[in-house]
Amino acid sequence: MKKLITMLEQRKNEMIEIRRHLHQHPELSFKEKNTAAYIENFYRGKPVKIETNVGNGYGIIVTINGGKPGKTIALRADFDALPIQEEADVPFKSVNDGVMHACGHDAHTAYLLVLADCLIELKDELAGTIKIIHQHAEEAPPGGAKSIVEGGYLDDVEAIFGVHVIPIAPAGTIGYRSEYTFSGRSYFNLKIKARGGHGSSPHKANDAIVAGAHFVTTVQTIISRRLDPMETGVVTIGSFDGKGTFNVIKDSIEIEGDIRYYNSQTEKLISQELERIVKGIEVTFGVTCELTYEIGYPPLYNDPDLTKFVVDTLTQINDNDIKNIIEVPKMTPSEDFAYYSEKIPGAYYFIGCTPKGIENPYFNHHPKFDIDEDSLIVAAKSVAYIVTNYLSDN
Amino acid sequence: MKKLITMLEQRKNEMIEIRRHLHQHPELSFKEKNTAAYIENFYRGKPVKIETNVGNGYGIIVTINGGKPGKTIALRADFDALPIQEEADVPFKSVNDGVMHACGHDAHTAYLLVLADCLIELKDELAGTIKIIHQHAEEAPPGGAKSIVEGGYLDDVEAIFGVHVIPIAPAGTIGYRSEYTFSGRSYFNLKIKARGGHGSSPHKANDAIVAGAHFVTTVQTIISRRLDPMETGVVTIGSFDGKGTFNVIKDSIEIEGDIRYYNSQTEKLISQELERIVKGIEVTFGVTCELTYEIGYPPLYNDPDLTKFVVDTLTQINDNDIKNIIEVPKMTPSEDFAYYSEKIPGAYYFIGCTPKGIENPYFNHHPKFDIDEDSLIVAAKSVAYIVTNYLSDN
Amino acid sequence: MKKLITMLEQRKNEMIEIRRHLHQHPELSFKEKNTAAYIENFYRGKPVKIETNVGNGYGIIVTINGGKPGKTIALRADFDALPIQEEADVPFKSVNDGVMHACGHDAHTAYLLVLADCLIELKDELAGTIKIIHQHAEEAPPGGAKSIVEGGYLDDVEAIFGVHVIPIAPAGTIGYRSEYTFSGRSYFNLKIKARGGHGSSPHKANDAIVAGAHFVTTVQTIISRRLDPMETGVVTIGSFDGKGTFNVIKDSIEIEGDIRYYNSQTEKLISQELERIVKGIEVTFGVTCELTYEIGYPPLYNDPDLTKFVVDTLTQINDNDIKNIIEVPKMTPSEDFAYYSEKIPGAYYFIGCTPKGIENPYFNHHPKFDIDEDSLIVAAKSVAYIVTNYLSDN
Amino acid sequence: MKKLITMLEQRKNEMIEIRRHLHQHPELSFKEKNTAAYIENFYRGKPVKIETNVGNGYGIIVTINGGKPGKTIALRADFDALPIQEEADVPFKSVNDGVMHACGHDAHTAYLLVLADCLIELKDELAGTIKIIHQHAEEAPPGGAKSIVEGGYLDDVEAIFGVHVIPIAPAGTIGYRSEYTFSGRSYFNLKIKARGGHGSSPHKANDAIVAGAHFVTTVQTIISRRLDPMETGVVTIGSFDGKGTFNVIKDSIEIEGDIRYYNSQTEKLISQELERIVKGIEVTFGVTCELTYEIGYPPLYNDPDLTKFVVDTLTQINDNDIKNIIEVPKMTPSEDFAYYSEKIPGAYYFIGCTPKGIENPYFNHHPKFDIDEDSLIVAAKSVAYIVTNYLSDN
Repeated sequence: MKKLITMLEQRKNEMIEIRRHLHQHPELSFKEKNTAAYIENFYRGKPVKIETNVGNGYGIIVTINGGKPGKTIALRADFDALPIQEEADVPFKSVNDGVMHACGHDAHTAYLLVLADCLIELKDELAGTIKIIHQHAEEAPPGGAKSIVEGGYLDDVEAIFGVHVIPIAPAGTIGYRSEYTFSGRSYFNLKIKARGGHGSSPHKANDAIVAGAHFVTTVQTIISRRLDPMETGVVTIGSFDGKGTFNVIKDSIEIEGDIRYYNSQTEKLISQELERIVKGIEVTFGVTCELTYEIGYPPLYNDPDLTKFVVDTLTQINDNDIKNIIEVPKMTPSEDFAYYSEKIPGAYYFIGCTPKGIENPYFNHHPKFDIDEDSLIVAAKSVAYIVTNYLSDN
Repeated sequence: MKKLITMLEQRKNEMIEIRRHLHQHPELSFKEKNTAAYIENFYRGKPVKIETNVGNGYGIIVTINGGKPGKTIALRADFDALPIQEEADVPFKSVNDGVMHACGHDAHTAYLLVLADCLIELKDELAGTIKIIHQHAEEAPPGGAKSIVEGGYLDDVEAIFGVHVIPIAPAGTIGYRSEYTFSGRSYFNLKIKARGGHGSSPHKANDAIVAGAHFVTTVQTIISRRLDPMETGVVTIGSFDGKGTFNVIKDSIEIEGDIRYYNSQTEKLISQELERIVKGIEVTFGVTCELTYEIGYPPLYNDPDLTKFVVDTLTQINDNDIKNIIEVPKMTPSEDFAYYSEKIPGAYYFIGCTPKGIENPYFNHHPKFDIDEDSLIVAAKSVAYIVTNYLSDN
Repeated sequence: MKKLITMLEQRKNEMIEIRRHLHQHPELSFKEKNTAAYIENFYRGKPVKIETNVGNGYGIIVTINGGKPGKTIALRADFDALPIQEEADVPFKSVNDGVMHACGHDAHTAYLLVLADCLIELKDELAGTIKIIHQHAEEAPPGGAKSIVEGGYLDDVEAIFGVHVIPIAPAGTIGYRSEYTFSGRSYFNLKIKARGGHGSSPHKANDAIVAGAHFVTTVQTIISRRLDPMETGVVTIGSFDGKGTFNVIKDSIEIEGDIRYYNSQTEKLISQELERIVKGIEVTFGVTCELTYEIGYPPLYNDPDLTKFVVDTLTQINDNDIKNIIEVPKMTPSEDFAYYSEKIPGAYYFIGCTPKGIENPYFNHHPKFDIDEDSLIVAAKSVAYIVTNYLSDN
Repeated sequence: MKKLITMLEQRKNEMIEIRRHLHQHPELSFKEKNTAAYIENFYRGKPVKIETNVGNGYGIIVTINGGKPGKTIALRADFDALPIQEEADVPFKSVNDGVMHACGHDAHTAYLLVLADCLIELKDELAGTIKIIHQHAEEAPPGGAKSIVEGGYLDDVEAIFGVHVIPIAPAGTIGYRSEYTFSGRSYFNLKIKARGGHGSSPHKANDAIVAGAHFVTTVQTIISRRLDPMETGVVTIGSFDGKGTFNVIKDSIEIEGDIRYYNSQTEKLISQELERIVKGIEVTFGVTCELTYEIGYPPLYNDPDLTKFVVDTLTQINDNDIKNIIEVPKMTPSEDFAYYSEKIPGAYYFIGCTPKGIENPYFNHHPKFDIDEDSLIVAAKSVAYIVTNYLSDN
């Protein structure tokens, strides 16, 4: 569908303008009131169904019905920003103190708005239905995606696509990975309550620090001995809060940890073994433990067939803007796109965006994070190729 | 020397008044300017040698030369107070916010001033010399005693005596213990410097909390396997400051600990093994450790012969105020009287002071600590018997 | 090359007979004198170059020069047996007590002898050179492969192929895996020398068991914190020999361990960290450690291109004997074929051999291990297709 | 009672002869048939009550009724030997292979036989009753003493005395200690049953060695944190039997340990905490533990008053054979005399026996253990003084 690609090329500057506007006016997760209004306004009057306040926040779903019957697919872009004070030296710097589009969601939303508009214009020629998901609150668990899935918005959708700008390569390079791509993450908090006392009389007290130290050393055996060595899992104890006075035995400490995994069996195993060790610490040291365990986003799984479809599609086109398709390794961040691809086949891939002339770019979440805006057209075109190929493929 | 005892009985109320005055105007260690002035003033014009600003603070030494040649002994009372907000309900409550005579040094000073004055009055009948040591800064290491010893003030003294009020029994009971009586104490601070990182990538970081936990578990072997089981030693880790963020690997932690012992070989063994384990942690985990180790007061040793002399003396008198002599167990506090009795034979014993009608008294260092003021005359008389017996015993 | 396939089909029974003969007369690694003589005799008088006593044992290399110039490839089959007493109920049971072909090397050798003979017969039609490697001593490190590589026998070879029978599927199924397929393995032995003593006097001794226990708990951090969680590594302590008398402190213990990995960086990391921890134990506990570390076989790496070539070749043929090509997961055994594929591109794949009608077959190294002899023709044909396709592919 | 002392002096050689006879014919605990017969025979026909087969073995109790009414006391000597092959170079070397009087019970029995005989001769002059306890099986728990106490033989006795030869000093020196003198001892055996497996697959197994190592490190906290630092306790793990194959995960290990203490509260605390830790290991590692715990002999307690009586008695005599009375430190061996002194006041003291001219004597239980036989008369006389003083002290 050449027409679509040409339209995108003609509206490249519009994407950049939208992105800059959004960049300048970032809003935190679950508080994206103005951003949502901006998006809603963009679609106002167009021949589409617009649903607002979707899920547990300001989510917006725009449904484009093609002129011919066909498959139903979804495209997703997130639009929330981060609690970071921008340090990037750009003319369209954030005007909201302490808030910054440091993860590129401005770019995601910008390309998808323009692409959606083009698809609306061409909708009579399309076979099938396209749901444009403008998702709120990706950055802050529980996130927006889960509530959208639970709202049934994907029940009639057979495939979903999403992209993320990331400076692993210059604009023009697209990265993909089949199967598990981003890690799943859980959080735990362990309070060990013992019995304080004078440092000179350990037998009259019950030392929370000693119990906590044994917890830390024993926890190592989850990864070293209890997890299948072919699987990936991490248990990091990031906080051991046992500050006290040198000669007073601590009566309680608080430990916080981060757990990473690439599938739910690993998550289950780690959480079960963690619980077992906590109970063991109670028995061994006669302390009382309070364990809070929260599953964050699940690991992000890219459907192999859908990923192959994406790669095949992008490999076969001949487009000067899309120069390079590379496989990327598993990565450790988490993404609530994972909820979509738990529900239906999903393909989530990466748009190179390293600013020109920069060798060591600042990565996402850095106060100086910046992108090459040429990546916008790459995102838009790649999704355009995939959509048209997918819907034509009856 | 009946006369001395009678004089003390007549001046019992004066002791109480002095004690109440001091109690109302407590001063922190090394800051006892007014207390020292009060003491100096007490002796002003009396036929004694007064040395002020003794040692590293406001120490005062008063030398009473007896009319006849004889031995030289020292009597010591400390006069500093604690950084505690008084909660005791007494009419002479501390007027200095956050400062309190919660350890009874007011009583020590009060009885000794009056006793000294009586001894001065009777000095012509005394054989020998008595040095009255009004010591500053017992509560805060490095304390005042060490500097007094180093100043040479004990070089010509052959025995030193001191007492402490403590509510282990009612007024009238005296407690003693031969040999090691109070523990020695050391403090250590360990900074473990590692390399922080993201919780999902432990291999790129070097986890200070894991190293610290292994330190804590390994330190247990000092007492369990390296110390003679016939000896007493304690290593308490009172603080493990590793507070951080759950998903960030800590780059450094700080551990603080308290070490107790009853002789210097145990102290040496523990400090050596601690150092050895710290080096082992460096090697094992590739971290950098900074260990600060400070010896506090040494264990307090009561000379067995001198203690026997005290017990024999107090057992043989027939005095209604001194009803009971009991042996007490080793105790865990520390005292800088220990420096005196490292230098010369010393006897340090305990004056029961549980307030009348109270079963579970508040102990020293408690905001509600209080004493039965009858203990003042007990202290004064017991020391009086000892002094006169000792000096007459040619 | 239809002719070759037809020849193999006609000589299927001969393969089985040879396999049974070898099965009945198994010989241990480095002691395969009669097996080697049998193989040498098989080739006697044929128009090939035969090299015997190759490498550090009874290895035999047969070189088949094709009638036309072309590439040089190698085919490898191992021929040693295991120190296992056979319990399989077969008519051709091992006649050598305590020795058994429990790993299927009899099958490997049998198919390759017949295939080689057919290739010799057809050699004038072949373009290139085929080296048939009959390898001794695969089961016992240092193995035979390393010495063959060091002997320069692969210097002129550009690809090597090998197969292994394994009852993961019935005969007719072929398993493959690209890149790291079998783990690498190292062995370590740690002697901790301390100072014995009476159980009641730990301070006079230096407890080797306590030091050893701390070694075991600390070693867990290699996998849990020091290894990239994306990599696979295992450190198993299989032996902790600290048997002694309950009331005597052990003066020495001996620990033995097994290390697994899938690439040499992981091996290096684990061995370095192991050494670091051993040194840490010396420093921490004042013991003397003797660490022996031996690298066993490296991880077996299948060249991705060569593996793709194998899979493509076997997928495109239309042969009733080869029904199914499946990808298999990484596996934990080790194989000295790994030395060949470190030197030159190699492809090592798996021949399903589950006996007919058996659901839970005995696996390799089990005293009742048995194979479906139909797997022989599968092995022979699959290698035949690969060889002819590879040599024709100029 | 001069007469008694003179009689003993005259029969000094007889003591030596008896001792040599017993030395030459040692018998193991609970198997002292001939020794018992020898003793019984010694008393045959004398005007005393003889009870044989006392308690759970060959114990013999001889009751000497004095001519006048008075107190009832007991004297105890043990008569069993050890499973040691004698290496001492003496003419009266053991004729029983692998059995040796390496602990001096031959000396104990020899002096007591002669002393008893003298007392029998003089019994009309004695006020009170003397029970001579010739005790079997001191060396092998459960020992003989407990059964004698349980048999009621001490019910009418008000004090018991015993001695032990020990080469801490030459003959002529007597050692004593008030209160706890010998340690109590318990034994434990811990079997940890887990699930074996292949070294490369820890997740399919459950590693007994890792669980055991954590047991060892955690057990250290019993002494370091759970026991009153003023008390003495030891937990030694003398055996960690986890020998296996380097690449096989152990399915079970066996640990054996030795526990020492000086009072029963410490014993109770240690055994409770041990049980707690064992349960914790079960919970933490999902293993099954079998803990066997056996209390050996209790700590030996010397009654302070009775000990003072002994010391005062021996200090006031003027006897060339008894030159020196010294206080000895607490010692770590165990003794079933402890059962007697749990029941009634007991005094158990030490008879120096270092062979003349020897500086570093072999100690009890050594194959070359030997004594200066002059120690026999010291033992006999010292007990004689104590008995006569005690019975005359109405």
